[in-house]
Amino acid sequence: MLFAVIPAGGSGTRLWPLSRAGHPKFLHALTGTEASLLQATVDRLGPLTTPERTMVVTGAAHVAAVARQLTGLPEENILVEPSPRDSCAAIALAASVIAIREPSAVMGSFAADHLIGDPAAWVSTVRQAITGAEQGLLMTVGITPTRPETGYGYLQCGELIDGGPLRRVEEFKEKPATEVAQEYVRSGRYLWNASMFVWRVDVFLGELARQQPALHAGLTTIAQSWDTPEREDVLGAVWPTLPKISVDYAVMEGAAAAGRVATVPGDFGWNDVGDFDTLGEVLPADGSGNVVLGADTVEPKPGVLLRDCERLVVVPHSGRLVAALGVRDLIVVDTPDALLVCPRDRAQDVKKLVDELKERGAEDLV
Amino acid sequence: MLFAVIPAGGSGTRLWPLSRAGHPKFLHALTGTEASLLQATVDRLGPLTTPERTMVVTGAAHVAAVARQLTGLPEENILVEPSPRDSCAAIALAASVIAIREPSAVMGSFAADHLIGDPAAWVSTVRQAITGAEQGLLMTVGITPTRPETGYGYLQCGELIDGGPLRRVEEFKEKPATEVAQEYVRSGRYLWNASMFVWRVDVFLGELARQQPALHAGLTTIAQSWDTPEREDVLGAVWPTLPKISVDYAVMEGAAAAGRVATVPGDFGWNDVGDFDTLGEVLPADGSGNVVLGADTVEPKPGVLLRDCERLVVVPHSGRLVAALGVRDLIVVDTPDALLVCPRDRAQDVKKLVDELKERGAEDLV
Repeated sequence: MLFAVIPAGGSGTRLWPLSRAGHPKFLHALTGTEASLLQATVDRLGPLTTPERTMVVTGAAHVAAVARQLTGLPEENILVEPSPRDSCAAIALAASVIAIREPSAVMGSFAADHLIGDPAAWVSTVRQAITGAEQGLLMTVGITPTRPETGYGYLQCGELIDGGPLRRVEEFKEKPATEVAQEYVRSGRYLWNASMFVWRVDVFLGELARQQPALHAGLTTIAQSWDTPEREDVLGAVWPTLPKISVDYAVMEGAAAAGRVATVPGDFGWNDVGDFDTLGEVLPADGSGNVVLGADTVEPKPGVLLRDCERLVVVPHSGRLVAALGVRDLIVVDTPDALLVCPRDRAQDVKKLVDELKERGAEDLV
Repeated sequence: MLFAVIPAGGSGTRLWPLSRAGHPKFLHALTGTEASLLQATVDRLGPLTTPERTMVVTGAAHVAAVARQLTGLPEENILVEPSPRDSCAAIALAASVIAIREPSAVMGSFAADHLIGDPAAWVSTVRQAITGAEQGLLMTVGITPTRPETGYGYLQCGELIDGGPLRRVEEFKEKPATEVAQEYVRSGRYLWNASMFVWRVDVFLGELARQQPALHAGLTTIAQSWDTPEREDVLGAVWPTLPKISVDYAVMEGAAAAGRVATVPGDFGWNDVGDFDTLGEVLPADGSGNVVLGADTVEPKPGVLLRDCERLVVVPHSGRLVAALGVRDLIVVDTPDALLVCPRDRAQDVKKLVDELKERGAEDLV
């Protein structure tokens, strides 16, 4: 049975002012239901594993919130990063801890803050990836592209393995320019890299030792102390020395070059919920295309009053009435200490407002 | 010296959610300074009269707020309407109380919720109106129209009196259709009726007796009890029986037909601050045409963060940060319990939202 690892990091600045450094994206109910993205991620794993085999890796600032949202998870399965060291350290920590329990366990790593429209299709895809992992491949779930997106990395696919559905990954491609992305989509040979990985922990740690010996050595030291009274001391001493690097760049690119990475193309309504415009595309809308976040889960009063409005994305998150009249394609996010008004086609630039607030020294608002 | 009367009524529903039934337009600082519209109205009267000769007529619900805003006004000069009976009863009450003190005093009536861009020019115009009032005319200050506005009533002017600047008013015209308004403006014979009146109280009360005998009789009864212990009882008994009618309709139209009304054309940047779009036109804007209400009088933090915005009207009235990105010609009004987002060209329709809230039974929000 799968060990599931959920790296829960990232602040989601393009979802400001809802998402904050202190209460990031994965803790919010951006799912169209009462569940947070994190809770939905755990729920989705139901057919694949158990809470005892599910781990969350998160920052010290978010442990309490994660523990309260995931009441079914054993406490020891919430791994705390003493400081942010990017995804490779976080995932490798989980892999090392799993390896103590079960040295050749198959582990999957799934981001805490993505939406999956068709969870059953997702489970099938992950099951196919598990078969590849059991054969010793580093599996990455690729997403069949639906548009020439320039905001994602791509997987360049090679031959089918044993007639499919697994396919060799020849190369990881960084976020492309528009024309390049168009060519990728046209060719049919590229998938979006959603950073969902499935592998045997021994295979992954072997690749880590080969490509990132310093990281591997540090994590070996940490793992050796894990079930001893020294765990906190060792973690506190070693963790800050680990290289800050993403798992894609640290391990997967080199493993692909060595022919050790494969993918399963997935088509299950994946969305990384990067910004409010995206959220408006995936969540249920009313007859005029307006998406009101949490509209059917929060108290209807005072709620939202929309008149002659189309294609709004409204987040009424302060308990106040949000009234809009005669506007369209607009994002309105209402929180207890900050309000955002912005057209949907500028949703990406919300990050710039956050940057500006940081420059102003308004850290309490970011 | 003039007696000044300020009828302070009307809730300003097109300025919702800033203006509320419980805290109407005239109490708000919509002046570009810290002064409320009411305070600015009193300040403007400085060259014409004294606080001892200035009276406010307002509803019971607003007396306390008026008393606190106008600390220089003697308490007995705040006249309380036991219930709303429209402008004729309110103004006639003040005229009757003034007549007790000084039977042929000249009184001016000036709305509590208008903006005047050039107070010195306004004072000059009122002084000219006073000369007409002293001659026994019912004077109304007319505003030289700057556009074919269909939201105001008009004064149809006749001949100059003694070579000017006073002009006979032939007829009061209701709010016209667009073509009619265009013709009015083209002809040069029409002025906006701003409901600013100057007259001798004996002349006004005489016209009231002639045209509205019931109203006049009721107010005579009230006036007779004014300086006695029975004032409250009589007011409570008689006031609710008074006809609910505007002074324009009750007295001025008939007086004009009888040739007793004259006007002085005024050109002093008058604005009735009817809606947020109008407010955006008259208050100082930044280099991109954005008007932020109270921006230079409230604490700058958290304040407002505008990026790539043009011609916004922003009312940051909840203490929260208002952030807007890439929007133009929009109204954003942020109050502690309700938020409004609406294009400037729909500012008139804000009233419809208030109506809808009333239908919903959300009386606490209107």
